[in-house]
Amino acid sequence: MPDLALPTQDRVERYFKELNNWGRWGNDDQLGTLNLITQAKQLQAQQLIKTGRTVSLARDVIPRPVYMYHTTFPSKRERVDVVLDRFDMVYHGFWITHVDALCHVAWDGELYNGRGFAEHVSTDGATWCSIDAIFTKGITTRGVFLDIAAARKEGYVTVGHPVTPKELDEAERRAGVKLGPGDVVVVRSGDEAFRKAHSDWVPRVSPHPGLHLSCLEWFRAKDIAAIAWDMMDERPSGYHGFGMSTHLAIPFLGLALIDNVDPERLAKACAEEGRHEFFFTATPLRLVGATGAPAHPLAIF
Amino acid sequence: MPDLALPTQDRVERYFKELNNWGRWGNDDQLGTLNLITQAKQLQAQQLIKTGRTVSLARDVIPRPVYMYHTTFPSKRERVDVVLDRFDMVYHGFWITHVDALCHVAWDGELYNGRGFAEHVSTDGATWCSIDAIFTKGITTRGVFLDIAAARKEGYVTVGHPVTPKELDEAERRAGVKLGPGDVVVVRSGDEAFRKAHSDWVPRVSPHPGLHLSCLEWFRAKDIAAIAWDMMDERPSGYHGFGMSTHLAIPFLGLALIDNVDPERLAKACAEEGRHEFFFTATPLRLVGATGAPAHPLAIF
Amino acid sequence: MPDLALPTQDRVERYFKELNNWGRWGNDDQLGTLNLITQAKQLQAQQLIKTGRTVSLARDVIPRPVYMYHTTFPSKRERVDVVLDRFDMVYHGFWITHVDALCHVAWDGELYNGRGFAEHVSTDGATWCSIDAIFTKGITTRGVFLDIAAARKEGYVTVGHPVTPKELDEAERRAGVKLGPGDVVVVRSGDEAFRKAHSDWVPRVSPHPGLHLSCLEWFRAKDIAAIAWDMMDERPSGYHGFGMSTHLAIPFLGLALIDNVDPERLAKACAEEGRHEFFFTATPLRLVGATGAPAHPLAIF
Amino acid sequence: MPDLALPTQDRVERYFKELNNWGRWGNDDQLGTLNLITQAKQLQAQQLIKTGRTVSLARDVIPRPVYMYHTTFPSKRERVDVVLDRFDMVYHGFWITHVDALCHVAWDGELYNGRGFAEHVSTDGATWCSIDAIFTKGITTRGVFLDIAAARKEGYVTVGHPVTPKELDEAERRAGVKLGPGDVVVVRSGDEAFRKAHSDWVPRVSPHPGLHLSCLEWFRAKDIAAIAWDMMDERPSGYHGFGMSTHLAIPFLGLALIDNVDPERLAKACAEEGRHEFFFTATPLRLVGATGAPAHPLAIF
Repeated sequence: MPDLALPTQDRVERYFKELNNWGRWGNDDQLGTLNLITQAKQLQAQQLIKTGRTVSLARDVIPRPVYMYHTTFPSKRERVDVVLDRFDMVYHGFWITHVDALCHVAWDGELYNGRGFAEHVSTDGATWCSIDAIFTKGITTRGVFLDIAAARKEGYVTVGHPVTPKELDEAERRAGVKLGPGDVVVVRSGDEAFRKAHSDWVPRVSPHPGLHLSCLEWFRAKDIAAIAWDMMDERPSGYHGFGMSTHLAIPFLGLALIDNVDPERLAKACAEEGRHEFFFTATPLRLVGATGAPAHPLAIF
Repeated sequence: MPDLALPTQDRVERYFKELNNWGRWGNDDQLGTLNLITQAKQLQAQQLIKTGRTVSLARDVIPRPVYMYHTTFPSKRERVDVVLDRFDMVYHGFWITHVDALCHVAWDGELYNGRGFAEHVSTDGATWCSIDAIFTKGITTRGVFLDIAAARKEGYVTVGHPVTPKELDEAERRAGVKLGPGDVVVVRSGDEAFRKAHSDWVPRVSPHPGLHLSCLEWFRAKDIAAIAWDMMDERPSGYHGFGMSTHLAIPFLGLALIDNVDPERLAKACAEEGRHEFFFTATPLRLVGATGAPAHPLAIF
Repeated sequence: MPDLALPTQDRVERYFKELNNWGRWGNDDQLGTLNLITQAKQLQAQQLIKTGRTVSLARDVIPRPVYMYHTTFPSKRERVDVVLDRFDMVYHGFWITHVDALCHVAWDGELYNGRGFAEHVSTDGATWCSIDAIFTKGITTRGVFLDIAAARKEGYVTVGHPVTPKELDEAERRAGVKLGPGDVVVVRSGDEAFRKAHSDWVPRVSPHPGLHLSCLEWFRAKDIAAIAWDMMDERPSGYHGFGMSTHLAIPFLGLALIDNVDPERLAKACAEEGRHEFFFTATPLRLVGATGAPAHPLAIF
Repeated sequence: MPDLALPTQDRVERYFKELNNWGRWGNDDQLGTLNLITQAKQLQAQQLIKTGRTVSLARDVIPRPVYMYHTTFPSKRERVDVVLDRFDMVYHGFWITHVDALCHVAWDGELYNGRGFAEHVSTDGATWCSIDAIFTKGITTRGVFLDIAAARKEGYVTVGHPVTPKELDEAERRAGVKLGPGDVVVVRSGDEAFRKAHSDWVPRVSPHPGLHLSCLEWFRAKDIAAIAWDMMDERPSGYHGFGMSTHLAIPFLGLALIDNVDPERLAKACAEEGRHEFFFTATPLRLVGATGAPAHPLAIF
């Protein structure tokens, strides 16, 4: 089903140059689009806190296959029993809520802002755009909820019918909020319902429904600071050489991605509160040198 | 240096009965003192947000010896390089900022609210008072900063001179805040300075400076919802059979402990903001069945 | 199908006392049946080496789900690329070839030779009958191959039809070897064929075919030093309180179990060499304090 | 102390070409020097077994810092207690006895026999010269013990005085054995005594004593099948671009390296048995796709 509205391969080939944020905040910048979160924007976000209602956007992390987990040998110390846990995870992937560091993906051997991948990532971790770069600033800004799934007849985005910029615009209109630079968008594509309906779907192996590659244009045009999404990007992307799909926002735009969020509680809360904007905060674990980190994003009303 | 003000062994033996919160919120309660965080308390907390200034109370997590960490094999996918991390940690202990679940410590074979340790904790995790119990409510309330270290001449609490209830009261007075039920206290005992000054100090092996066992009385009297602390409790406690020291607040009171926080940035922020109270939130990773979870506590002004 | 030849529950209840080897080699012994490997026995074993043909009895260890495995980040050092592995396993279970230490299973709270389980096993490992106990002696003796599967019409032992002592005797007769104290028996129950035929079989969850509990009598009567087996014991055992089945040979007899061997190559070699006895050696990894260790058992002709 | 007998940089630059074994056993060979272990050689080895005395050449593997190790949560099943271990190791390095696969080190981007490193090693393991290649053949051959340390006045090889081919020749003479193609040499450089005498020595960080780079010539000239060594190679090597030192035997010669052996028990056994040759076997764990594997090498007299 070729969509005339979708960009050609030629158009996509120009994305890296046209959408590029390298140098926009200086040659030594490692924050990327988080620079768009100004004090004014944070003040706007803070003023959205009315009732203090706090909504978790994190998924439950369950043992195996998602992560290795062991409750350790209990130890008896006088009158008490103490027990610990050891857990072990690869958080990148399709289960655990986490923030991607900008060093997670390189393009043509270069990380965001033009540093060499091979020179800056090693077995000891990353020395350019590791997750440490955002420890101080964090991701605290206005959040806007875009419910794509609600307008799909299946209740979720399907394979072969990716989310387009036009669809994001429609969701913005339905949300009744005008997006601006520095916002984080929380996109609900209906991942939970999709997985329930397709129990044989295997992440990475099966085709992924999700956002179309051209959403990169929309990210750049809206100048969002971050995206927090449940289903992430369409794969394969349908464009030769662009298989990483909208994850290319990392090296092209320096965009903060908050992967594998659970927007279901938020959908309910937005409906009940009667608004689609809120105070948003996502603070990754302070894993020094890491290519990302698990996080527990919150929406506060 | 026997302190006449300190309780006798006999007195301490009565703690379990006298301070006990079992059944206070019903026989099936797994939340413990988090029940003290009422809607009114949360509203009070929310009204403390004025500027949106957000302060991280989490420590940096560094590879080895704190946790095993690997940047995994980079993979080349068309024009991109992608690299992941695997990390592996035992977060209980003396390095990583985390929330203790109430199943972490049992007394005389019983967990908070009288469930058997052996029956409810196994290699598969916990089925009573695991960290899941607080996923929905979280720990979002008013935070009050008590700076014990500031009044110590060494700049930190020393071995053999534990923090007493009286000292906590003085810190409360200095903070200019009246504590009430449902607050979280952030206690700074000066752990960072202590460790710098004692580079040969080994957690668990060397004696620990920290809060005296009798602070259990204070926790109960103030009816705090949680304590977030940098140095934690004095060990050995000096009382036979009570070696777990103030960690006994877990089985006795059902108190939420947020261990290994970093209060240094908060001390600075409180001084600059001119107040010692703030909106506090600590949301642990949603590790199903675990005896606790890493968390990133935040103070928002 | 009640087998009149099978022992009653009453008979089995007496096993612990009747078959018991505690104290047989002194109160401080941690070797158990490996004491039966005398110098004379080892000489007999050594004389079985005629051609030097060496047969591996170990299974392939494959990544996931069997063990966590990572090829680590490659590092470039001048003109070379170097890459390492990290691997991570729980070797007990039903996949990895390993030797059980005698501390692996306790009976009524006591390990082999009457030491308390709780006192001698902790998060730091074992201080009684850990695998270290056999580092010096190893398991080097005469091996005798008993092919149970060859006489079963399905080609493997089936659920509900466990291997009995009588069947072991018949296999010994077919092997043309007279067993004696200090031998290791390599038992082929046809695990590989069984798993292929039952792809939905789940270890620990599904019923296990294997050796009947009464084989404990046979182990003791023959005074074998060790058993190396592919399918291990029948579970459930059909006897109340004896669910660990023939694994009770560990606490009762102090018998060395070599679990999850692959006898398929050996079956072929025995047929080609025209004999069922050989030099046998199984040397576990020297994991200090462990409850067992991966091993690579060999048969040499 | 420049040694006139040591090769120049120019000489060393020619090593790759002159010592090269690529294609020697066909273009598809993945066994390397293990091809030199002929049936005749194995028969010779087998005839060296006289008493059956078996000597372990493996080091003890101790928890932390060498490997992560956990005794898992004990489980109570009826009348038994069962406990497992989980262990987790990076066996390459300077502690754990292991066999290197030929894919462990590449030269100018190519593995032994001219396959590309990048094409054949990934996060899933290796597809050329992984350790699987030697599962069938193993390393079973004649072992010859060369005691370098015994002739050093310090009792071990020192930093700055590497082992030379001449010194290996002298040790061979002292051993009273004439080396031939297909032998494995067990080299004792005195690592245990060296580490005891230098408690502040840090592997990888401090300079390593060991075999001089020119021993590559000796390996090739003697046509040994494998080397089993305690101290390994001198680092830095003193030659630009050749920092991997004698480990370059892997890509150049396809030589099997058995790293981190413990030759102390063997030294004693050789003295007592009055001979320096024996049956040698080293069978790595069957870790499919791995870049090496832990092993327990044995000498049998």
